[in-house]
Amino acid sequence: MARPEVPQDALHRLIEALRVLPGVGPKSAQRMAFYLLQHDRNGAAVLAQSLGEAVETVGHCARCNTFSEDQICSTCSDGRRDPSLLCIVETPADQIMVEQTLSFKGNYFVLMGRLSPLDGMGPNEIHFDRLIVRIENPDTGVPVREVVLATNFTSEGEATAHYIGEVLKAKGIKVTRIARGIPVGGELEYVDAGTLARAMMDRRTLG
Amino acid sequence: MARPEVPQDALHRLIEALRVLPGVGPKSAQRMAFYLLQHDRNGAAVLAQSLGEAVETVGHCARCNTFSEDQICSTCSDGRRDPSLLCIVETPADQIMVEQTLSFKGNYFVLMGRLSPLDGMGPNEIHFDRLIVRIENPDTGVPVREVVLATNFTSEGEATAHYIGEVLKAKGIKVTRIARGIPVGGELEYVDAGTLARAMMDRRTLG
Repeated sequence: MARPEVPQDALHRLIEALRVLPGVGPKSAQRMAFYLLQHDRNGAAVLAQSLGEAVETVGHCARCNTFSEDQICSTCSDGRRDPSLLCIVETPADQIMVEQTLSFKGNYFVLMGRLSPLDGMGPNEIHFDRLIVRIENPDTGVPVREVVLATNFTSEGEATAHYIGEVLKAKGIKVTRIARGIPVGGELEYVDAGTLARAMMDRRTLG
Repeated sequence: MARPEVPQDALHRLIEALRVLPGVGPKSAQRMAFYLLQHDRNGAAVLAQSLGEAVETVGHCARCNTFSEDQICSTCSDGRRDPSLLCIVETPADQIMVEQTLSFKGNYFVLMGRLSPLDGMGPNEIHFDRLIVRIENPDTGVPVREVVLATNFTSEGEATAHYIGEVLKAKGIKVTRIARGIPVGGELEYVDAGTLARAMMDRRTLG
C-alpha cells in the first residue's frame, strides 16, 4: 500500500502542517505559508513558539472542564462569582459568548462537545460523570441551586440539554434552559416559522 | 500611551499569535486554537516545528528568486528544462499554477510581488536588477531567447508586464505575453465586455 508521501522540503512540510487548522485546505495552506515566509517571518516564529507552549501547558480546569493552565481556572477561582449557579455550555467559545453578555455571574461547566451518538459522542465524551460530581459533591463547598442549560439550539444541543435536564430533574435539582425566540433586532417577516412558533408559545406577560 | 496588552496565559497568546495568518481574525483564531487543543495536539506540535524549521531554512533561489532551501531551487537545477525560455510570474503560487498546466518546460523568474507605487512596490521590490542579470548574464551559460510575461491581468500585473516588456524590448529581447480571452468552459453571455473585446481582437485563424 502506498503511504502518503512525506514532503521533501521545509516549505512543503509547512504547507502540509498548516492543513491541521480547521477550514484550511491546500490552497489556503499554500497562501498562508507563502505569506508568512514573504511578509512575517517574525510572526511565524512567535506562532511556532506559542503553539508549542500551548500544547505543553494548556490542560483542563478540574472544576469546570474548560481549557486552563492552572488546576482551577480563573473563572472558577473568582470569589465574586456565585458557585451555586451553574451554566452548562458546549464549548469554551460558547462560554466566552455568555461571558460577553455580562448577564451571568455564576460558574460554568464546559462539556467540550455535545451528545451525538453517530459521531461517537456519548455521556462519557461530554464528561457527564464529572458534571454530576460538580453538582452533587461540589469542591466549592456550596450546593448548586440552579443549573442553566445553555447548549446550542441545534438537534444535538437540544438532545444534550434534554438528557442532562432529565437526569438532573430526577435528582430534584432546579434546571432551566436559556430562552428561544426572535433575536434582538429581528424582524418577524424574516424569521423561520419554528422560531416564531416557539416565541409565541414562550410569550411573557408584560410586567 | 497604552501599549497593546500582552496576553497573560498560553491559550490567549496562541489565539493572538494565530492572527498573523492571512484572513484569520479574532473569531477564527479562537476557533483554531480551541480546535487544535481539543482535537489535534499532535498536529499542532508538528505545525510548531514546521513553522520554526521553515522560518530558519527557507530562503530564495539565487537564480529564479522563488522560495528555496537550496542555493539553486529544484526547478532551476532540473536539466530537462529549457533555460533559454524564461517565464516571469508574480508569486510562487502563480508559478505552481503554470507548472500544473504542464504547458511550459522553461525556467522561471518569480518577482515576489508586482509594481504598485502606492504600496511602495517599485522595480527594486520586484528584484528587477536580478531579473536583468538573469537575462543578460545568465549563470546557466545559455542565452535567453524568449521571455514570457505571465503576471496577472490586474492593473498592477498589467503595469508590471508593460514595464518589464518595454525595458526588455529596448534591449532587443523577444518578449511575449500569455493570452487573454474567454476561459475554457466560459460562456459568452456571462463574460465581461472587456474580456470579450480582447478575445475578438486576439482572434486566431483556424488551422
